Amino acid sequence: MLTNRRTVQIEWGDCDPAGIVYFPRFFELFDASTAALFAKAGFPKHELYERYGIAGIPMVDTRARFFSPATFGDTVEIDSSIAGWGNSSFTVEHKVRKDGKLMAEGFEKRVWTIRAPEEGGRLKSQAIPQEVKDRFR
Amino acid sequence: MLTNRRTVQIEWGDCDPAGIVYFPRFFELFDASTAALFAKAGFPKHELYERYGIAGIPMVDTRARFFSPATFGDTVEIDSSIAGWGNSSFTVEHKVRKDGKLMAEGFEKRVWTIRAPEEGGRLKSQAIPQEVKDRFR
Amino acid sequence: MLTNRRTVQIEWGDCDPAGIVYFPRFFELFDASTAALFAKAGFPKHELYERYGIAGIPMVDTRARFFSPATFGDTVEIDSSIAGWGNSSFTVEHKVRKDGKLMAEGFEKRVWTIRAPEEGGRLKSQAIPQEVKDRFR
Amino acid sequence: MLTNRRTVQIEWGDCDPAGIVYFPRFFELFDASTAALFAKAGFPKHELYERYGIAGIPMVDTRARFFSPATFGDTVEIDSSIAGWGNSSFTVEHKVRKDGKLMAEGFEKRVWTIRAPEEGGRLKSQAIPQEVKDRFR
Repeated sequence: MLTNRRTVQIEWGDCDPAGIVYFPRFFELFDASTAALFAKAGFPKHELYERYGIAGIPMVDTRARFFSPATFGDTVEIDSSIAGWGNSSFTVEHKVRKDGKLMAEGFEKRVWTIRAPEEGGRLKSQAIPQEVKDRFR
Repeated sequence: MLTNRRTVQIEWGDCDPAGIVYFPRFFELFDASTAALFAKAGFPKHELYERYGIAGIPMVDTRARFFSPATFGDTVEIDSSIAGWGNSSFTVEHKVRKDGKLMAEGFEKRVWTIRAPEEGGRLKSQAIPQEVKDRFR
Repeated sequence: MLTNRRTVQIEWGDCDPAGIVYFPRFFELFDASTAALFAKAGFPKHELYERYGIAGIPMVDTRARFFSPATFGDTVEIDSSIAGWGNSSFTVEHKVRKDGKLMAEGFEKRVWTIRAPEEGGRLKSQAIPQEVKDRFR
Repeated sequence: MLTNRRTVQIEWGDCDPAGIVYFPRFFELFDASTAALFAKAGFPKHELYERYGIAGIPMVDTRARFFSPATFGDTVEIDSSIAGWGNSSFTVEHKVRKDGKLMAEGFEKRVWTIRAPEEGGRLKSQAIPQEVKDRFR
């Protein structure tokens, strides 16, 4: 299973008045980590859109758990991988480690989405091409 | 059960290249909605900190599900309430509606946290005062 | 000269480890304040785009000065008005007050921009319609 | 004069509905770039605070000009350097290049700030130590 590791430095602007990462920032980091995972599989996000004519891979369900805090100056490692494939949806898992210790984890469920021109451009799900799935093996 | 309703206008800067709210923004909206719920119960966040000597009510587990999108110019209503009290933790639920229709929901688990001076200022959980819980009835 | 006043509550998530508003947030507040000024003039941003076929009113030059800080729980008032019109550009001024005292000010220069289909969709400036300017008198 | 170069990948979440970097994000990038410049000079932000007992180096005046846009998938280089030293303030310049071409520039004026315990913890400026200035030569 393909995994992508990103090393991220926590910045002053990522942190809140308690001096720790403001938790919504982790969802931004996870979103960028999913994009990096796809890029590693050969699908930079902008190419993904053009190549498959999708409107996006919007989030339908996402969760994060936080075990210990991080602050500015810290460096964290985010390991991301596909946790499962559905017909038109997939799940991604992120593990965040600081000094090798798991400090947070994230979960995403996203949908392969196109705009249906025959339905006024409405966003609708579509089967994920097998060749896309194969690249993450 | 005390519920707080916030009416929020979605701004251009809340949205991503797909033209819809960038999902981490919903976690910022939920965080501000929890603060507003506490304020309605008589505990503005800055007073909460001073009055009970807590270091914060950090997030340990949070989740959101998205059923339909919102874009800039939209107005949404966020209803927030306590879903349950533990000894030192509590859960909050947020329901987001656009034109009366449920479009997203959020869940938060937070911990009542102090700094333990006898343990080098380490963050640790503490029992939530009953008088705090009573205000949300 | 048309002026729009927005009352904004500063949230925990707007603030940095020093406990004061993280300054890039003010640029987000100013951007939303310009949108609100246009809405007051009769041009909600999404209608502006459709009605005049513009691609946007992107920022080309922006500046802010900060005289005193604000923190979470504070309420500030932002007064916004057009400072001047050029042929295809315009400037906006924002004054931020807390308890009636000027605490920050912002300046924006934006350009009325279309996509030129005959030039491959390149973004280019265009003369601002007089009827748009008239609405801000 | 010490210059620091950061290479930054533009993410989906940095961009707005026009598909280009939402301009307040550039101020976040500049803020992190100033922190990186100080780190290169031997002063990681958290050490700077402890070593000199400062409350921060808050922004009092900042400006950015944008010459051409960037979008997700783009990589930009940000060159940052001290533009001048005052007694208790200093200015920083940032040049953003994409494919070697200048696309934006930023300017910051910051103040070396302490909390004055004899004045109730009020934030006030203080002379910047010469040894700090010397490190940027």
